[in-house]
Amino acid sequence: MKLETTYQSNNYPIIVEHHALEQLHKYIDSYKDIVLIIDETVYQQWEPSIKFLSAEYEAHQIIIPSGEATKTMAFYESTIEQLLSYQLTRKTCLIAIGGGATGDFTGFLAATLLRGVDFIQVPTTILAHDSSVGGKVGINSKHGKNLIGAFYRPKAVIYDLDFLSTLPYSEVISGYAEVYKHALLTNQQALDEIESHFPDQNSLSSLKGIDYYLFKGIETKLNIIIQDEKEANVRKYLNLGHTFGHAVEYTLKIPHGHAVMIGIIYQFIVANKIFNHNNDINHYIKYFESLGYPLSLIKKLDFEDLYTLMLKDKKNDQNGIQMVLLESIGQPVVKHVDYEILYSAFTSLLSHLKK
Amino acid sequence: MKLETTYQSNNYPIIVEHHALEQLHKYIDSYKDIVLIIDETVYQQWEPSIKFLSAEYEAHQIIIPSGEATKTMAFYESTIEQLLSYQLTRKTCLIAIGGGATGDFTGFLAATLLRGVDFIQVPTTILAHDSSVGGKVGINSKHGKNLIGAFYRPKAVIYDLDFLSTLPYSEVISGYAEVYKHALLTNQQALDEIESHFPDQNSLSSLKGIDYYLFKGIETKLNIIIQDEKEANVRKYLNLGHTFGHAVEYTLKIPHGHAVMIGIIYQFIVANKIFNHNNDINHYIKYFESLGYPLSLIKKLDFEDLYTLMLKDKKNDQNGIQMVLLESIGQPVVKHVDYEILYSAFTSLLSHLKK
Repeated sequence: MKLETTYQSNNYPIIVEHHALEQLHKYIDSYKDIVLIIDETVYQQWEPSIKFLSAEYEAHQIIIPSGEATKTMAFYESTIEQLLSYQLTRKTCLIAIGGGATGDFTGFLAATLLRGVDFIQVPTTILAHDSSVGGKVGINSKHGKNLIGAFYRPKAVIYDLDFLSTLPYSEVISGYAEVYKHALLTNQQALDEIESHFPDQNSLSSLKGIDYYLFKGIETKLNIIIQDEKEANVRKYLNLGHTFGHAVEYTLKIPHGHAVMIGIIYQFIVANKIFNHNNDINHYIKYFESLGYPLSLIKKLDFEDLYTLMLKDKKNDQNGIQMVLLESIGQPVVKHVDYEILYSAFTSLLSHLKK
Repeated sequence: MKLETTYQSNNYPIIVEHHALEQLHKYIDSYKDIVLIIDETVYQQWEPSIKFLSAEYEAHQIIIPSGEATKTMAFYESTIEQLLSYQLTRKTCLIAIGGGATGDFTGFLAATLLRGVDFIQVPTTILAHDSSVGGKVGINSKHGKNLIGAFYRPKAVIYDLDFLSTLPYSEVISGYAEVYKHALLTNQQALDEIESHFPDQNSLSSLKGIDYYLFKGIETKLNIIIQDEKEANVRKYLNLGHTFGHAVEYTLKIPHGHAVMIGIIYQFIVANKIFNHNNDINHYIKYFESLGYPLSLIKKLDFEDLYTLMLKDKKNDQNGIQMVLLESIGQPVVKHVDYEILYSAFTSLLSHLKK
């Protein structure tokens, strides 16, 4: 399956297939230097394939720590200095092989090396179906996630689904949160469809049929980012569940999607309060628990800490915290939400979990 | 005097006037937060004016080391973390008040803070007539100058010529190198005009009539960068004198323009060898010495060290070192130059200085 962005210029293909890596050569023939930047866990599990690639393209190879651990300023500095020690020219292509963090990190290196070189995303996780598309790149600050970065488009996204076979289940549900979020942003039918296709941990861990939902998720995301690349308006919708989710992720150091799912429940509670909705919170809690999300961790959280973190969210404006809320399934809006409602939604979330 | 870029979109004004700062308010009314980032020397000399600005716009104020000392990764990290501690939103404008280094550094902060916020250049030196226009921003690597950075346009360039009155003469000639380079890229008439207007240190130190040449220099630069923002082709011409110049600057730690003038002489010698030209090297040496450029420093240089640095130049490609050479005044080309010619041009430069 192949998609293509539809910007006015500088478009890039998104290939979502098993054995997609075999097509990589089409996109890197014109470069003087190729550098593979590889998540260490992916490297351990796929060493022969990656060594083959390195040899085939006479590529430099940099193996980086798994996950968010790589997205620090110290590691950014040491890696960009390492790249510069290769005496690269601008005719260089960096290839990110790993999950979202690898892509974010490599993309930020590409955006800032010699004032910008090309890069290609080779996502290896379900979560990265989301992060590899759309050109958001960056690293973390001590003040919060992704606060240092850029908008910088890849030259291609080569999503080889073979990689998913070695994902631990905890990574599967982390990624599924964004797939599910894309269904929430589409319509009720998409939501019903995905919930009935993956009713529980058994079905989700098999990954049977996931290709279709990954493709649909990317399609939903593309529809939005083509309208608003730099997140001035509708792209904010993709932050559904993320205002609270990022704060939870930063506090508990749990996988991104686990925190986003918690953020999605929280959003439904806030929406109930603001719109006088009647979202069935227990349905979501029950469904997410049946998939294995660690919702009980919520009890460890302190609201004031989360609030301080939410105040740093990039969507905020003069009025304070801005959240994406669903007016109905498939109908997101961005709303200012004040302290009292945020606080009472948190209390309500805790009481739902005690039931 | 006012110029405006003519890109397809996201254009910005360039105001070149005495008291131009009085117009700043027009460009910053719509922001939630304003942060002034000020070179410490400029701050010392213009403290009352800058305090007035800070108060008027309720701006945060960050004072940074003068010159290239600020363009380190360590200082980039501490400053971006400081900015993030203010809990800024994307509706923030950074204002760079200082020379080229202040602008490069502030622009790189703006390019990477929250994936990009706006910034305005307020250049305070002659050199910065060049660097403040064109959107090149960045910091230095241990492998060379400006190797970490981005192309990122300012929202406006407010060039208040009042600042020039406190420039030490060493800074005047550093900036004059780029003004002179712009004349070299224009035509013989422009070159004759500027040489006769500023025949010696006396005339140049008075700065009389400099406005006109600054304006002309910016015009020449705009003509080029509008055609090629990302330096894929003609923008490389602006690197006239810089291949050798950057290597000299990095080695001797002398002001940028002093090194560029040395690079310009070197370029004429290389052009003589490659094109069988008959550029009058002694004319340039004599003229630059009469203006006070420290050409005798060249004798301290070791060619192999310079060659290693030149190999890291961003213009290089598969074939090695690429230099901008003048086929004639106003007619630059980019040429591959091999080791033997570079070496013999260096020997020739030394022998010219002994005369």
